[in-house]
Amino acid sequence: MQDVINYIERNQPQFLEELKDFLRIPSISALPENKEDINRAAKFVEDKLKAAGLNKVEIFMTEGHPLIYGEWLGAPGKPTVLVYGHYDVQPVDPIELWQSAPFEPEIRDGKIWARGATDDKGQMFIHIKSVEAFFKEKGTLPVNVKFIIEGEEEIGSESLETFINSHTELLKCDAVLISDTSLFDEGIPTLTYGLRGISFMEVEVKGPGKDLHSGSFGGAVGNPINILAQMISKLQDKNGHIKIPGFYDDVRKATSEERKNFKRLPFSEKKFTKEVGVKQLQGEKGYSTLERIWVRPTCDCNGIIGGYTGKGAKTVLPSTALAKISMRLVPDQKPAKIAKLFTNYMKKIAPKSVTVTVRNIHGALPGITPLNSPATQAASIAMEKAFGRKTVYMREGGSIPIVNVFSTKLKAPAVLMGMGLDSENLHSPNEHFSLNHFRLGIMSSAYFLDEFSRK
Amino acid sequence: MQDVINYIERNQPQFLEELKDFLRIPSISALPENKEDINRAAKFVEDKLKAAGLNKVEIFMTEGHPLIYGEWLGAPGKPTVLVYGHYDVQPVDPIELWQSAPFEPEIRDGKIWARGATDDKGQMFIHIKSVEAFFKEKGTLPVNVKFIIEGEEEIGSESLETFINSHTELLKCDAVLISDTSLFDEGIPTLTYGLRGISFMEVEVKGPGKDLHSGSFGGAVGNPINILAQMISKLQDKNGHIKIPGFYDDVRKATSEERKNFKRLPFSEKKFTKEVGVKQLQGEKGYSTLERIWVRPTCDCNGIIGGYTGKGAKTVLPSTALAKISMRLVPDQKPAKIAKLFTNYMKKIAPKSVTVTVRNIHGALPGITPLNSPATQAASIAMEKAFGRKTVYMREGGSIPIVNVFSTKLKAPAVLMGMGLDSENLHSPNEHFSLNHFRLGIMSSAYFLDEFSRK
Repeated sequence: MQDVINYIERNQPQFLEELKDFLRIPSISALPENKEDINRAAKFVEDKLKAAGLNKVEIFMTEGHPLIYGEWLGAPGKPTVLVYGHYDVQPVDPIELWQSAPFEPEIRDGKIWARGATDDKGQMFIHIKSVEAFFKEKGTLPVNVKFIIEGEEEIGSESLETFINSHTELLKCDAVLISDTSLFDEGIPTLTYGLRGISFMEVEVKGPGKDLHSGSFGGAVGNPINILAQMISKLQDKNGHIKIPGFYDDVRKATSEERKNFKRLPFSEKKFTKEVGVKQLQGEKGYSTLERIWVRPTCDCNGIIGGYTGKGAKTVLPSTALAKISMRLVPDQKPAKIAKLFTNYMKKIAPKSVTVTVRNIHGALPGITPLNSPATQAASIAMEKAFGRKTVYMREGGSIPIVNVFSTKLKAPAVLMGMGLDSENLHSPNEHFSLNHFRLGIMSSAYFLDEFSRK
Repeated sequence: MQDVINYIERNQPQFLEELKDFLRIPSISALPENKEDINRAAKFVEDKLKAAGLNKVEIFMTEGHPLIYGEWLGAPGKPTVLVYGHYDVQPVDPIELWQSAPFEPEIRDGKIWARGATDDKGQMFIHIKSVEAFFKEKGTLPVNVKFIIEGEEEIGSESLETFINSHTELLKCDAVLISDTSLFDEGIPTLTYGLRGISFMEVEVKGPGKDLHSGSFGGAVGNPINILAQMISKLQDKNGHIKIPGFYDDVRKATSEERKNFKRLPFSEKKFTKEVGVKQLQGEKGYSTLERIWVRPTCDCNGIIGGYTGKGAKTVLPSTALAKISMRLVPDQKPAKIAKLFTNYMKKIAPKSVTVTVRNIHGALPGITPLNSPATQAASIAMEKAFGRKTVYMREGGSIPIVNVFSTKLKAPAVLMGMGLDSENLHSPNEHFSLNHFRLGIMSSAYFLDEFSRK
């Protein structure tokens, strides 16, 4: 393996230049005006997979954004690894808080700064480069490899889900390898075995037929903002428990072993509080911070808007108010059921003075991967070799909507070999990715292909 | 008087052309980028006052927007009327809901459509034209007349308040004549004798130092939007009573005579509900709709914003959330005291996980005018003559921040001879003003100058 590792070391500058080109493409999946950039990003991935040495690379057009499929099946009798990643990124606002422009990648302090650096372009690129290293040094791979790279991860992975259902045979594999999660901390090799799901909803409260003067009408007409605020306030009780009837019915409790594992991790509440930048943490009563993030569901407003929000004062009694509200889900909650419970509850608690519309924007299943699968074992050894220390196991508060679809449909365990850090501002201004973890990630990926070939 | 009235009838087309020119100026006082338009509107008023025949017209520069003062004191021994109005207008958003552009006045259905048509350019213009009619037909006025026209009514009238305090002698008068309120209904001559005050506040809730990923952090960190919503929900109880401690301490109860008067007015709850465009009205328990608007204080969110509000989904746990909240006040509530009570309450109910900043944006005193003053009597007769039916008396839910300052400082009753209609979309898209009320308003103003000369 040493020649492969040396190739990876030697070619860091070249890999970084290529990653910068990738990060320059503003492939924001949520915004229709970035459709052309989405297509450019898909083309970029296609080109890089070909250049890496895969012998069948294809772009699949979908009803949403394009999918890129690539494969090399030249190792008969050996296991097949399916690498998954996404080339789409989150929107960038508030743009004024970025220290350097989100789509003009910069190297500072041993990190690369740009939207998508850690989520997920930088992490996904790792696996393309480990495959390239094998082909350049050995002319072959130790296992069979497939890639499926999508452009809708940040908006619900709908097209990929359809594709998996219709291309189960094409995607057949023994393990799904994904780098789209975080290390527990800098330099600590980490495997993530649980992910939260999500149910993302939009609630619109409509009162008067038009904006009214708050003097001439105020007091006699229900105010959509006040009413929406009241409805949001009824989502949680004072202990942080979610009040939607039936919400917790399918929640699987963390095992006592899991809770013990969590306690052993080098987690500092003080450091976390400081990093987050709050005076004091706040969450569901009876649970630790890690438990609140990993094994408990949430209900957070992601956005709210109504009335006059410009400078100065405008004494308007607005016609409508809108909130985007998402619930992170844990096994065995189902997004479709949760969306229904949420909708019913919102409609039930709304006063008769307003009309409430609830929209189900997207959902994703939560998931858990068995720790004793050969793929997980291989990944644990691979990361230990790359990082030079023992691999730890954790769960993750975020969702990769598609992971559960993969494991269910393809009947293969997902290996979440994340190389990011929670502090890397994914979904926020000043997103970045550690150059050291980028390097160790490519090595971990290479070691994994090697280790897994012996399973 | 017939020649004066004939002049007014004859010159309607000309008056309307001039009003259109006035309405074309986007004199939005809240927006710094419209400063030049504010100056143009002030100049327009100056020119029209001069053209009407006043012999001393002057623009006073202030720390805010310019004031225009004009006078004609050629009737010694006769009373002096001070006409007040404002040339500034509200912002126009949501702009996409306007049927015709807000600053391109159009005549449709016997109405003139533009931002400021009824509030207050059209109504204020009435008095300039009645003065013109007298000068053109008689070469003189039956009473002494002063005008004071400001450009900050929609943002708190701060400069005018300072000016009144420092120019009490200049503004000395026997009555303040104002058209900036509404008729009870189409064609019903109405005098308004009570106005609500206002306390306009802004509340900012700051949580994490930056926007966070709602998956990686959600559940462990207080969400500023959820928290702001909870705080807003604690402003009122389920009966619509405001929960801020001490809020009702200074509220003067409506007299039983007033409540009886209100019941006699031709008010249809059904028609009101339909006009407002709601399924059902909502307000404080134990009060009628008119009472809720006229004699009870309110607490309404005028705007709210936080997190991601664009298209699609963004799973952000936002750093901040902001609400604009105003309270309409009734005699004898004081905005300064209410602002303090509000601030204390907001800070008290906020959890320790966030930092709350409360800003006092502006305030205005509520006010009541005695019904038995000579000026009110003259106005009642004048409107009856113009409209051909008996004048009714009402209160008003809106605020004219300066009215109470006038009556206190100048020791003169305010005559609120409003010509608008609540249905004319003041502060909303598609603001308009009835051409018939514009005409009857100029006549009412002329009759008033005549009637008041005999008091």
